[in-house]
Amino acid sequence: MALSERVKQILSWYPSDNPGTLGNLARMLNHGTLAGTGKMVILPVDQGFEHGPHRSFGPNPPAYDPDYHFQLAIDAGCNAYAAPLGFLEAGAGKFAGEVPLILKLNNSDSLSKLAEPCSAVTASVRDGVRLGCTAVGYTIYPASGARNTMLEDLREIIAEAKGFGLPTVVWSYPRGSGISKEGETAVDVVAYAAQIAAQMGAHVIKVKPPKETIEQPEAKKVYEKYSIPVKTLAERVRNVVQSAFNGRRIVIFSGGEAKDAAAILEEVKGIRDGGGFGTIIGRNSFQRPRDEALKLLRDVMGIYRARA
Amino acid sequence: MALSERVKQILSWYPSDNPGTLGNLARMLNHGTLAGTGKMVILPVDQGFEHGPHRSFGPNPPAYDPDYHFQLAIDAGCNAYAAPLGFLEAGAGKFAGEVPLILKLNNSDSLSKLAEPCSAVTASVRDGVRLGCTAVGYTIYPASGARNTMLEDLREIIAEAKGFGLPTVVWSYPRGSGISKEGETAVDVVAYAAQIAAQMGAHVIKVKPPKETIEQPEAKKVYEKYSIPVKTLAERVRNVVQSAFNGRRIVIFSGGEAKDAAAILEEVKGIRDGGGFGTIIGRNSFQRPRDEALKLLRDVMGIYRARA
Amino acid sequence: MALSERVKQILSWYPSDNPGTLGNLARMLNHGTLAGTGKMVILPVDQGFEHGPHRSFGPNPPAYDPDYHFQLAIDAGCNAYAAPLGFLEAGAGKFAGEVPLILKLNNSDSLSKLAEPCSAVTASVRDGVRLGCTAVGYTIYPASGARNTMLEDLREIIAEAKGFGLPTVVWSYPRGSGISKEGETAVDVVAYAAQIAAQMGAHVIKVKPPKETIEQPEAKKVYEKYSIPVKTLAERVRNVVQSAFNGRRIVIFSGGEAKDAAAILEEVKGIRDGGGFGTIIGRNSFQRPRDEALKLLRDVMGIYRARA
Amino acid sequence: MALSERVKQILSWYPSDNPGTLGNLARMLNHGTLAGTGKMVILPVDQGFEHGPHRSFGPNPPAYDPDYHFQLAIDAGCNAYAAPLGFLEAGAGKFAGEVPLILKLNNSDSLSKLAEPCSAVTASVRDGVRLGCTAVGYTIYPASGARNTMLEDLREIIAEAKGFGLPTVVWSYPRGSGISKEGETAVDVVAYAAQIAAQMGAHVIKVKPPKETIEQPEAKKVYEKYSIPVKTLAERVRNVVQSAFNGRRIVIFSGGEAKDAAAILEEVKGIRDGGGFGTIIGRNSFQRPRDEALKLLRDVMGIYRARA
Amino acid sequence: MALSERVKQILSWYPSDNPGTLGNLARMLNHGTLAGTGKMVILPVDQGFEHGPHRSFGPNPPAYDPDYHFQLAIDAGCNAYAAPLGFLEAGAGKFAGEVPLILKLNNSDSLSKLAEPCSAVTASVRDGVRLGCTAVGYTIYPASGARNTMLEDLREIIAEAKGFGLPTVVWSYPRGSGISKEGETAVDVVAYAAQIAAQMGAHVIKVKPPKETIEQPEAKKVYEKYSIPVKTLAERVRNVVQSAFNGRRIVIFSGGEAKDAAAILEEVKGIRDGGGFGTIIGRNSFQRPRDEALKLLRDVMGIYRARA
Repeated sequence: MALSERVKQILSWYPSDNPGTLGNLARMLNHGTLAGTGKMVILPVDQGFEHGPHRSFGPNPPAYDPDYHFQLAIDAGCNAYAAPLGFLEAGAGKFAGEVPLILKLNNSDSLSKLAEPCSAVTASVRDGVRLGCTAVGYTIYPASGARNTMLEDLREIIAEAKGFGLPTVVWSYPRGSGISKEGETAVDVVAYAAQIAAQMGAHVIKVKPPKETIEQPEAKKVYEKYSIPVKTLAERVRNVVQSAFNGRRIVIFSGGEAKDAAAILEEVKGIRDGGGFGTIIGRNSFQRPRDEALKLLRDVMGIYRARA
Repeated sequence: MALSERVKQILSWYPSDNPGTLGNLARMLNHGTLAGTGKMVILPVDQGFEHGPHRSFGPNPPAYDPDYHFQLAIDAGCNAYAAPLGFLEAGAGKFAGEVPLILKLNNSDSLSKLAEPCSAVTASVRDGVRLGCTAVGYTIYPASGARNTMLEDLREIIAEAKGFGLPTVVWSYPRGSGISKEGETAVDVVAYAAQIAAQMGAHVIKVKPPKETIEQPEAKKVYEKYSIPVKTLAERVRNVVQSAFNGRRIVIFSGGEAKDAAAILEEVKGIRDGGGFGTIIGRNSFQRPRDEALKLLRDVMGIYRARA
Repeated sequence: MALSERVKQILSWYPSDNPGTLGNLARMLNHGTLAGTGKMVILPVDQGFEHGPHRSFGPNPPAYDPDYHFQLAIDAGCNAYAAPLGFLEAGAGKFAGEVPLILKLNNSDSLSKLAEPCSAVTASVRDGVRLGCTAVGYTIYPASGARNTMLEDLREIIAEAKGFGLPTVVWSYPRGSGISKEGETAVDVVAYAAQIAAQMGAHVIKVKPPKETIEQPEAKKVYEKYSIPVKTLAERVRNVVQSAFNGRRIVIFSGGEAKDAAAILEEVKGIRDGGGFGTIIGRNSFQRPRDEALKLLRDVMGIYRARA
Repeated sequence: MALSERVKQILSWYPSDNPGTLGNLARMLNHGTLAGTGKMVILPVDQGFEHGPHRSFGPNPPAYDPDYHFQLAIDAGCNAYAAPLGFLEAGAGKFAGEVPLILKLNNSDSLSKLAEPCSAVTASVRDGVRLGCTAVGYTIYPASGARNTMLEDLREIIAEAKGFGLPTVVWSYPRGSGISKEGETAVDVVAYAAQIAAQMGAHVIKVKPPKETIEQPEAKKVYEKYSIPVKTLAERVRNVVQSAFNGRRIVIFSGGEAKDAAAILEEVKGIRDGGGFGTIIGRNSFQRPRDEALKLLRDVMGIYRARA
Repeated sequence: MALSERVKQILSWYPSDNPGTLGNLARMLNHGTLAGTGKMVILPVDQGFEHGPHRSFGPNPPAYDPDYHFQLAIDAGCNAYAAPLGFLEAGAGKFAGEVPLILKLNNSDSLSKLAEPCSAVTASVRDGVRLGCTAVGYTIYPASGARNTMLEDLREIIAEAKGFGLPTVVWSYPRGSGISKEGETAVDVVAYAAQIAAQMGAHVIKVKPPKETIEQPEAKKVYEKYSIPVKTLAERVRNVVQSAFNGRRIVIFSGGEAKDAAAILEEVKGIRDGGGFGTIIGRNSFQRPRDEALKLLRDVMGIYRARA
C-alpha cells in the first residue's frame, strides 16, 4: 500500500536506519484504522504479568484467553498489539500477518520486591524475529538506581533489533529512589524520560500523560523563567513531544488505570491537541466487555482522525 | 502410537513450537497408564538434593539407589520421571527408551542460606539432549528478590531447549521477601505464579495446591468484587488453571509433604474436579515401601482416568 | 488486514514454519490487487544482470532507473517485486513499506561460459533482512552437473532465511548436461523441477510454462501407461502443480520472452485454468512503455481474479 | 514402554553411544507392529526426489500428497517413515509423536549427470532435531570416485547427530567407476558396503538384497577357499549380516523396484531366514493402492513376527 | 609404573610436546609384554575397511566380531590396538583401560578407484578423545598427486591431537603416480617416506620393510657414491631409521601380507638388528586361529626382548 506523505515525513526522521527498520515502522503506521495518518493506537496486554492474572482479567473473563487480545486488536483496527512472550507465542502463528506485533522484551511482576525497580529480560530480539514481530518493546525506569543495567541492556537490544530490521518501542516510566512518587508523572520528569529514550535510539517512545507538577528544582527554574505553559494536558503533551527531538520522534501516551470512557476520550483529545502521536491503551480496553472496548477504541481513533 | 483427539487438542495450544518440541510433549502425554487422556502423573525425585539424602530416602532405604526411581516410574506407568543430573546420569543409559525423563536444570539445597531464594543452575539443556530427556525442568521463585536472575536464566533455557525440540516444565513456587510465608500458597499468588510461568513460555507448569487465603490486597478486591469462588480445592484449582491462558497451558500440582493415602487421593480428586492436568508426586511415592507406592500411584491414576 | 480463508488455507500447508515466515508469506499473498485471492503476480527484474543492460532496458529507457521498477510494481498492484542486490539497495529505503521485496540471492550473466550452469551467490540472507525484504529468491538448474553446489547452497539459505522469518522463492529452471535443450521445458522435466524445489523446502516455486514434450524415457512410460493428459497448457500446469506436493506448494509460472499482449493473456488463462498460483512477469512488463505495462499487468490480474 | 530383552541386547551393541542416541534407537525398535521383536519395517519415500514425481506417484495419485505417507506408515504399523526435508516438513507438526521419522540428509535426482555418483546434502542434522526426527539418514555410494566427499560428510553428520542423540541410518549402495553394473549387487560388494557403513559408525545399515555374483577377484578366492555359501538369498543375507560386525549392527534390506506381492514376500522370507533385521520398502508400498499396500506391509511384518 | 631409562630417553626426543602427549607416548611404551623396552608390537585391524570383510575375516571367522581384536591385543600383551572408528566404538567402553587404543582417522577401501590415492577422513581427533584413545593414526601416500590434501589434513590433525595430549602415528606408504609399483618399497623411497612423516611432526612412524631396490636416480647416485649398505634387511632398516632424525623418532614396520610364521620371525629379527622400534602386525595375527596368533605375537615379542 502506497505510503501517505505524512508517513513518509515521519520515516524521514530516522535517516540512520536501514530499509528493514523503516519498512517495519511503516507497517505499523500503515496498518488499521489510522493507517497513513501518522497516528497510532496500540493495544498492550502485559498486565497479566505485571499485575497478576485475576486483577487483570477478572473484570472481563474472556480476556484470560490469549486469542482474545489478537482478535480485539484486529477487530478494533489497532496499529499493533504488544504483549510478553507467552501471550504472543500462543497466537502468533494463528494470526500471522493480521496485525503488527510488538514483543515486550522485559517485564516486572508485583510479587517480588526489588531494592530498585528493574524489569527482568523475559524474551530476546530473536524471539521477536521468530514470531514475526514488527517491533520489540522494552521498559526503562528512569530514576531507578538500576539505571545502568537497564540502559545498557536497552542499548544492546536496540542495536540487535536494528540489525534485524525491527524498530524498538521504549516504555519510559520514571520510578525509583531518584524521585518522589508524585514526581513519576511530573511534566519535567516525563519530558526528561522521553528525552532519555530518544537519546538511546528508541523509534517509538511511550510515556504516561504528564501532570502539572514539576519535580526537579533546576527544571522548575527554567519552566518559570521562560514561562513554559503546562497548565492544560495539551500544553504538557506539547512540552513532552518537544523534548523528544522537537517532535521528530514518535511519542505515544499510555491510558493508565481503568476509568470511564468520557474521561479517556477527554484525555485523548488533550494528547491529540498537544501533538501526541497516539495512545497505547490496555486496561481500559480489555477490562471492558468486548463491545464496549471496540466502541471505545473506535472513538479514540475517531478523535485522532478528526485532526489527522 | 496414534494420538488421541484430546492430546492433539492440547498440542494445538502451542502453535509457535517446532515439531520436535510438540513431539516430545506428545511423548509425555502418550506414555504410561494415562497415555492419551491429557492427564499426567510424574515422579519427581529431587529431594535428595533439596532436603538431604537421609531425610529423603531414610524412610525407604532402597530409594537411595538411582535405579530404584527409574524402575518405580516405569512400573507405576508414570508419564515421566524428573530428577537432577546425577540421578539421571546414573540410569539414563540403562533405562534408555523406557520412560520419558525430565532433567531438572536447577536445584537448591537446605544447607545454604541465601538472602533471597534462587536455585543454582546445576545442569544444561545440552545435558538433557545427551541424556535423551523428553523435557527439561526449571524452578522459579516468584516473589524472590532474585527474580531477574531466575527469569533471565529461564528465558535462555526455554529458548535453547525449544531449539533442541525439548519442552520446558517450570516449577513455579512463590517464595521470598515479596510475600508472607502463608502467601506462598495463597490462591491469588499461586494463580499469579502460573501466569508468570505461562508468559515466560513454559509448556508445563507445576504449582502447589492453592489454599483459600488471598495475599495481595489489590487481588483481594477483584476476587470479592467479582465473587470469584475459592472455597473448595476444585474451585481454587479452576481459578489457577484459568490464570494459565484460560486453561490452554498444562498445569499440574505437586503432592507436597508426606501424608496418608486417603488424604492424597482426596486432594487428587479436587485437582481433577477443578480441571487440573495432573499430579507430580515425589515424597508420597518414593518414601513408601515399593508395593504401597505402586498402589498409591495407580490409585491416583485411576482417579484421573475416571473422568479423563 | 484480516486474512481470507484461502490465504489461511495456503498458510496451513507450511506447518513447520515459524510465525515470522508465515507472516511474510501472508504479506505477499495479502498485498496488491490480488490480495487475499491466493494468486500472485510478481514483477522480477534481474535481466540487467542476466542478459545485459541494453538488451534489457534499451526497449524502454526509463527502466534503466532502479526506482522505475519499484514504482511500476506499486502502481500495478503486484504482490511483490524481485531483483538482485544492486537494484534493491538503490530503492529499498525510499520505497520502504510500499511493496514486498524479494532479494534474488544468486545470479548468472551471459558473458561467462561455465562448463555446467551454476549461478553465483551475489547476496546474503542478511542482506534481505537489512533491506526489509519479505522473501529471498534463489535459482537452481536441475540437470546441471553443478547440482550439488547449488542444492547445498540452497539448503543453507532456506534454513538461514527461515530463522529470520523469510520464505524462499526458488526459480527452478532445468538446464545443463543432463537434458536436451528441448527437454528444459518438457512437462516431465518441469514437474520434476517443481518436485525438487518442494523437497528442498521452497515456499514458492517458479517454473517455466511446460511444453508437451516428455524428456525422460522412464517418465514417458508412466505418462502413457496412466494416460496422464498433457495436451493443453492447463493440463500441463495441473500436472506440474500436482507434482508439487499435490498442489500444496505455491507454484508460479514465468512469462518468458517478450511477446504480444494477447499471447501473454492466453497463456495466463491456461495457467489459471490448470490451477497455477500466478505469474512472474518481467520482460513483458518493463520492456513495454509504462502505460502499456500497467494495462497488461492489470489485465493479467483480472484473469486471476475472474476465477480466484 | 518397557523394552524387550531382544531390544536391550541390540542396544548393548552400541556401548559408545549416549543415552539420547540409545533412546532414539529404542524408540524405532519399540514402535509399531514389530515393536520389541528387534525387527524393523521402514517406509522410505525419497523417490519423488530421486526418480521424479510422476514416475513415483503416478501409479497411485494420492501419494503425491505428503500426508499420505505419514498416514500409511502409521496405519501399517511401520517402525519409521523416512523422507527428504520437504516431505517431512509438510507433515511433521501435524503427525508429531505418531511415528518415528528419519530425515534423509542427502539426495540425488535423475536429471543431473555427475561424473561420479554423489548425492547432494539437502538437509542438516539440525533440521532433523527441529522436526523431531528419531534418526537421520545418509546415502553413500561405495565404489564412487567421490568416495572421500561422501565419507567425510557422513563422518561429520554421524558425529553431530550423536551429539543430539540421533542415530544414523546409512543407505550403502555401491555404485560408480570402481565396479561393474552387475557388481552393484554382488554379494561380496554388498557385504563390503555393509562393513564400510559399520566402520563409519552407522547405527542402522541399509543395503540391497545381494545376488550370487562375486565381483572382486581377491574376494572370490576367499569365498571359494573357505566354501562360504552364497547360493540362497538367506545364505547371502547371512554373509552380509556377518560382515557388519558379526551381526552386531542392524542391517536392513531394501525392497527394490516394483514387483508382485508374492515375489516380495518370498524375498522377505529369505531376509528373515538369513538373520536380516528388516525391510525398508518404498515403491512396493506407496505405488500400490492403499488397501493393497497396507495388506502387503502387514504380510511382510507377519513374516518377521513368525520367527522374531 | 616407573619409566625405564630407555623410555625416558625416547621421550627426551620430543621436547616440544606437552606433558599430556608425552604421557600418552609413555603409556604405549610402558604397556604389555614389551613395557619399558622401548620396543612396540601393535595390533592393527583396518583391513575390514581397506580390503573388505570376508577377505579379511573369512580365514578366521571369530574375527568378524569387534571384541575379538581387543581381547587378542590384551591377551597377547601388545603395546596398543589400532582400528577405525566403528571397531573401536564397538568395544572401547567395554575394554576401557585394558589396552592403549589408536584411532585410525582415515581409511581407504578397495571398491573405489581414485585418480590419485587419498584415504577418506573417517574419524576426528575428538572421536579419539571421546573413546579414550592413547594416540591417533593417519595414513599418507607419499608420491600421490593428492599429496597436498593429505599433508595438510595431517598437519591439522597432529596439531589438534597435540592440543589434547595425543601423539600421532603416521602410516607412511608411498603410492601414486610419482613412483613405480616396485618403487613403493624401494629403500630410498621408504626412507624418504619416513623422513616426510618425521618432518610433519609424527610421533610414531609406520613404514613397510624396505627392499633392496633404489627408485630415484638421484638417490641411487648417493647410495653408490657413499657405498651405503642396503644388502640385508637389517642394513636397510638401519638406513630407514637413520632417515628419521638419526633414530630419534620411533619407526615401526608393518608385517605385510599373510605368510608363514618362520618368515615373519625372520623378518622381525632383521628389523630388530637394524634398530627398528617394533612391528605392527595385522593380517598375520588375526587371520590365524587365536592360539596360533597368540603364539606368534609372543614369539615376535620374544625376539625384541632378546636384545632390548
